[in-house]
Amino acid sequence: MTNETFRKLEDYMLECMKDSAHDKEHIYRVLYSALDIASKDENVDYDVLISACLLHDIAREDQNKTPSLCHAEVGAEKAYEFLTENGFDESFAEKVKHCISSHRFRKNNPPESTEAKILFDADKIDVAGTMGIARTLVYQGAMAEPLYSVLPDGRVSDGTDDKIPSFFQEYKYKLEKIYSRFYTVRGKEIAEERRKTAESFYNDMLNEVTSTYDNGISLLKDIIK
Amino acid sequence: MTNETFRKLEDYMLECMKDSAHDKEHIYRVLYSALDIASKDENVDYDVLISACLLHDIAREDQNKTPSLCHAEVGAEKAYEFLTENGFDESFAEKVKHCISSHRFRKNNPPESTEAKILFDADKIDVAGTMGIARTLVYQGAMAEPLYSVLPDGRVSDGTDDKIPSFFQEYKYKLEKIYSRFYTVRGKEIAEERRKTAESFYNDMLNEVTSTYDNGISLLKDIIK
Repeated sequence: MTNETFRKLEDYMLECMKDSAHDKEHIYRVLYSALDIASKDENVDYDVLISACLLHDIAREDQNKTPSLCHAEVGAEKAYEFLTENGFDESFAEKVKHCISSHRFRKNNPPESTEAKILFDADKIDVAGTMGIARTLVYQGAMAEPLYSVLPDGRVSDGTDDKIPSFFQEYKYKLEKIYSRFYTVRGKEIAEERRKTAESFYNDMLNEVTSTYDNGISLLKDIIK
Repeated sequence: MTNETFRKLEDYMLECMKDSAHDKEHIYRVLYSALDIASKDENVDYDVLISACLLHDIAREDQNKTPSLCHAEVGAEKAYEFLTENGFDESFAEKVKHCISSHRFRKNNPPESTEAKILFDADKIDVAGTMGIARTLVYQGAMAEPLYSVLPDGRVSDGTDDKIPSFFQEYKYKLEKIYSRFYTVRGKEIAEERRKTAESFYNDMLNEVTSTYDNGISLLKDIIK
């Protein structure tokens, strides 16, 4: 890919994401992880892969404004239009479109091509390790969701089977389970390298919070008559 | 303290914090950590301490709405009024007021009484360890601040000397430095027990992010002509 083409795609991505400035770093992390995965594979079309990585979340804002829209589907259409209107041929635009439409978690549209599988895995790597923890907590803050739920006896739930959204619930429901959902050997390897940092954080936090509550409730019972 | 008095104070706290529902768990953590610290000290007035813990952030909303207000000062006044209007004597209300007015970090009004020092330390424990990390990331999300800053060469800053607010900047500027700022032996001990969990998270995240960028930038240079 030429530097000029890269800048054209990057500029379009930045324009689409101007309302969520901090999310653009997610795009670069996905691109960089995808290049890492691709470097272990001999049959990668880098033009397709780089285009798909740069453009995979260009419809995030559309979904934020209209939650019934799927950003993968809308983003795939937007990317196809942008590419065909900017001198890329239809068969190339189709390949990029497939990558984007199939990159979403829990979607009945699995990635088929090598490049689509790499984008899918690179996007999931950003939910692994400390980055998965950090992005989840940032989301919790933006949505004003709590860190954990308190049970009727005043103690802290570890998140298992919780009905109310919280950081601990999201960890047990989603973050803990992503490590089995990779298509590429290298993608799974990177995620596994990071698994322990996420597990440590959750376990340390659970331990700090539950010991604080358990000890405090016990001490308070002896004081309040 | 009687159960009836505890409920009266708790109800007033919950009423003051109704617009920031998830913050109330901070109050219980501070109360529980304060009781832990107090259990190692023989000269604690538990009525003063418990009242001060429950009421220490009742002016958070006032400060959120009017940032020029100091929630410690306003909260101390509100607590004094509430207590004297609800049958507590003036000397008791004065002691609680001192604890609340002096609990704030970086304030030229240090805690003097045993109970004030315990509240100060218990509040700082909630900025230590994983809870300090989690609360900072939640704040970043609510304020739409980024996780880290990217340097002009495309690489990630570790937060040192950053001018732009981010999670890494806040870690280097504040979270990393709190462990020397405790008044009580037990408070410092609890914070020290948790120090490693915060340090591990920051170091793991810095390592994951910088290796992703450094490796990705290097691979991209070989592809983009």
